[in-house]
Amino acid sequence: MLSSVSQPGLENVATAAPAALRIYQLYVRGDDAFVEDHVSRAIANGYTAFCLTVDTAHYSRRERDIAKRFVRASRLRVSGSDFQMGLEWRTIKLIKDKYKIPLILKGIATAEDAAIALDHGVEWIYVSNHGGRQLDHGRGAMHVLPEIAAAVAGRAGIMIDGAFCRGTDIVKAIAMGANLVGLGRLQCWALAAAGEAGIVWMLELLEDEVIRCLGLLGVTNFAELDKSYLHAAMPTNPPSVFSAFPLLDIEPYRY
Amino acid sequence: MLSSVSQPGLENVATAAPAALRIYQLYVRGDDAFVEDHVSRAIANGYTAFCLTVDTAHYSRRERDIAKRFVRASRLRVSGSDFQMGLEWRTIKLIKDKYKIPLILKGIATAEDAAIALDHGVEWIYVSNHGGRQLDHGRGAMHVLPEIAAAVAGRAGIMIDGAFCRGTDIVKAIAMGANLVGLGRLQCWALAAAGEAGIVWMLELLEDEVIRCLGLLGVTNFAELDKSYLHAAMPTNPPSVFSAFPLLDIEPYRY
Amino acid sequence: MLSSVSQPGLENVATAAPAALRIYQLYVRGDDAFVEDHVSRAIANGYTAFCLTVDTAHYSRRERDIAKRFVRASRLRVSGSDFQMGLEWRTIKLIKDKYKIPLILKGIATAEDAAIALDHGVEWIYVSNHGGRQLDHGRGAMHVLPEIAAAVAGRAGIMIDGAFCRGTDIVKAIAMGANLVGLGRLQCWALAAAGEAGIVWMLELLEDEVIRCLGLLGVTNFAELDKSYLHAAMPTNPPSVFSAFPLLDIEPYRY
Amino acid sequence: MLSSVSQPGLENVATAAPAALRIYQLYVRGDDAFVEDHVSRAIANGYTAFCLTVDTAHYSRRERDIAKRFVRASRLRVSGSDFQMGLEWRTIKLIKDKYKIPLILKGIATAEDAAIALDHGVEWIYVSNHGGRQLDHGRGAMHVLPEIAAAVAGRAGIMIDGAFCRGTDIVKAIAMGANLVGLGRLQCWALAAAGEAGIVWMLELLEDEVIRCLGLLGVTNFAELDKSYLHAAMPTNPPSVFSAFPLLDIEPYRY
Repeated sequence: MLSSVSQPGLENVATAAPAALRIYQLYVRGDDAFVEDHVSRAIANGYTAFCLTVDTAHYSRRERDIAKRFVRASRLRVSGSDFQMGLEWRTIKLIKDKYKIPLILKGIATAEDAAIALDHGVEWIYVSNHGGRQLDHGRGAMHVLPEIAAAVAGRAGIMIDGAFCRGTDIVKAIAMGANLVGLGRLQCWALAAAGEAGIVWMLELLEDEVIRCLGLLGVTNFAELDKSYLHAAMPTNPPSVFSAFPLLDIEPYRY
Repeated sequence: MLSSVSQPGLENVATAAPAALRIYQLYVRGDDAFVEDHVSRAIANGYTAFCLTVDTAHYSRRERDIAKRFVRASRLRVSGSDFQMGLEWRTIKLIKDKYKIPLILKGIATAEDAAIALDHGVEWIYVSNHGGRQLDHGRGAMHVLPEIAAAVAGRAGIMIDGAFCRGTDIVKAIAMGANLVGLGRLQCWALAAAGEAGIVWMLELLEDEVIRCLGLLGVTNFAELDKSYLHAAMPTNPPSVFSAFPLLDIEPYRY
Repeated sequence: MLSSVSQPGLENVATAAPAALRIYQLYVRGDDAFVEDHVSRAIANGYTAFCLTVDTAHYSRRERDIAKRFVRASRLRVSGSDFQMGLEWRTIKLIKDKYKIPLILKGIATAEDAAIALDHGVEWIYVSNHGGRQLDHGRGAMHVLPEIAAAVAGRAGIMIDGAFCRGTDIVKAIAMGANLVGLGRLQCWALAAAGEAGIVWMLELLEDEVIRCLGLLGVTNFAELDKSYLHAAMPTNPPSVFSAFPLLDIEPYRY
Repeated sequence: MLSSVSQPGLENVATAAPAALRIYQLYVRGDDAFVEDHVSRAIANGYTAFCLTVDTAHYSRRERDIAKRFVRASRLRVSGSDFQMGLEWRTIKLIKDKYKIPLILKGIATAEDAAIALDHGVEWIYVSNHGGRQLDHGRGAMHVLPEIAAAVAGRAGIMIDGAFCRGTDIVKAIAMGANLVGLGRLQCWALAAAGEAGIVWMLELLEDEVIRCLGLLGVTNFAELDKSYLHAAMPTNPPSVFSAFPLLDIEPYRY
């Protein structure tokens, strides 16, 4: 999945990886013509699906960045935020009426929005809280997945992302109703650790973990899973006052 | 909101800020004449509303003060505590029968008391546990808000205070049924950090946080919020044996 | 309350404090004649009530003592443990049939046992887990109080003990249905801190805390309290692997 | 209980301890002839029961071993894993149809599997999560015991293992419906601490703890226990991010 704020851009990625399953993810920073231009180019360049980002009406206050007076280079050239802020269901309808490419809405966080998306013929619901970086005290993707899976009831595909680091994490999401699991940070870590070989190794580890987990659950494929394989558990990493500032060292802390 | 134990007093504040929305908050430390005198002066000086403090039948044991042999200067000149201790609904009736100024009861902590206040024609229920300083192991204002909001059911306004530090905290209270959120310590911190400019900056930060939070929740104003936007969560700051003594350093502690 | 393993014994305490409300608490370490002898002497010496200890079928493994090879002096002269182990409702019936002194059973921990005690005409149910020293992972006295209070339903008095250290702790027990709260360690601490004057001071502090708490709850006496004044809360002191060994310093510990 | 990967093997153990209650536990690493060979030899050598291991379709990722590049000697000579992976109910039927020795299935973790086992005439359900080493985030044996005990409803015996270290732990499992409790690590610890005498001492301690616990619960034998003697409690050892790596020292950790 290639976002519209990622390099080297829609066409270059298509040229470099023509046979790959490619999804183009748009941040709407322009008018209808802007949106249509991107949809058309995604279709023309053989993208499998088109994804609209719907959870960025505002750029969040990122306090670690603020504390360090750090501004991401990509933020300096942002324009068209008003279009993102004013994004409405009208745009989804526009795309569905005029284009024939599977549409994904990324950032769905409630059963209610999933239902409206279904009413608009959206093919994929992408459950995400944007890596936890957008809404202070928002719910985790895995927390909202059950109610969204119940609302979708098989009428659309469900993608999910948010801190998936293990093959067993993936198994849990699939058992809870997801069809696809997105990885972000994990790829960066693998790249940082060992470059391209790191990515391959990371994927092999995930595959190995998935296979062992499925086998030990007594199933031979994802399709046999359902939520009866899951049980609520207490968190291994409870939230704390300083969760948002893992590098901050304030000792002793008591309150 | 100006309390009767704050300086520079009812008239001076009115003179200094004639156009401001001002609320006068009384600690009842005298008889009916004492109460009527304050209500009359509040009306005469253009206060928007009159607030009775109803959660101070006793001054609490403040053990950090006791441990340091510290007595607040304002405590030295306290008189009339018996009136505060004996405060009854009769006084509320007296004010409502005789004066035409919106009445606020500050320190309501149960649905039962909110209902009695409504029966007396009180216009505003002020949910507060007095900054957590009054009743050992009392419930937090946000804990009691849901049952009080249900009891009030729109028949009075609801104010709340208690540890509100973020724009998102304010959004949560509004979504749960409050109409106004009171800030106390936050103003002191801002003043201590940067004086008058600090207050302005603090308010700007709150506004920014509120706007981003509303936008990311998918609403454009407070009125669209209701409690369906909230979900119970585990505390980020669980209580401990030493919660009341944050500066106490006893290590190691195990029990 | 004077236990049969305490000094200076039934008669000496009566002589020293003839006007005090005195309760005699028996560890049954002999046959029926042994029991009857103590009941008769308690009556003869003006004790207000007679208490049978019913939670010591075994002396518990006290591992801190074992680890230090410490044996309490009082344990060296223990005899008659078999009688304590074999204590049955028959003995309660024997006392009730033959003597006219209010009977207390100390160590009741279930609604079922409370009901049987009521059937035997017992006047006071003493809810206690023996300071947490008897049964590994037993429930706390405050945990079992609600179901016992419901079972007793006013047909007997309810005493309770177990870690009561604050006036507010006492208020909680009364609100939950207890009529009397027992103090043990608190008296030792007060004595150790300041001798007889420490006891007086401790009691004054408790009284002060109770009065402020009742006032801030909006009541003027214990009788106005009921369990609606209480709400379940998370523990301020969660159990840990080393709870039983507070002085043990094993760092770092992770599992 | 002697597993097929333990020394000195089926016949030698029988010779060394002819009068002992012996159970033979098979890891299925061969075809039907392999299984039948072991069952026959177990019967011929006077084993009381035969146990099939059913929770090892895969050898788990043991990351502490991986991190240390450690490979257990016994893993080097493993063959026939495919048979273990492909183990089906067919093999249970084969044994039950042809042999007359009580059959135990070790590693049952759901009521559903327990029910299928009962349908196959299995005499003992062995509830286990393999010491927590097999399935990442699997449920504990004590967590699944209630639903399995309900499903079994007395139609088969129930064994359980998993971190039982105290007599009181054993009492809890029996009260929850188990008939036998297995010990593994505890025997290794006792052996390491004091050899053969350590084992005897460990068993004496367990017996002492069981007897005191039963007595303090007011019962004189296991048969009087049922689940009404148990109450859900919060864990004394909550899981953490590093639970799997108790020796890892990463400080400070915050997230």
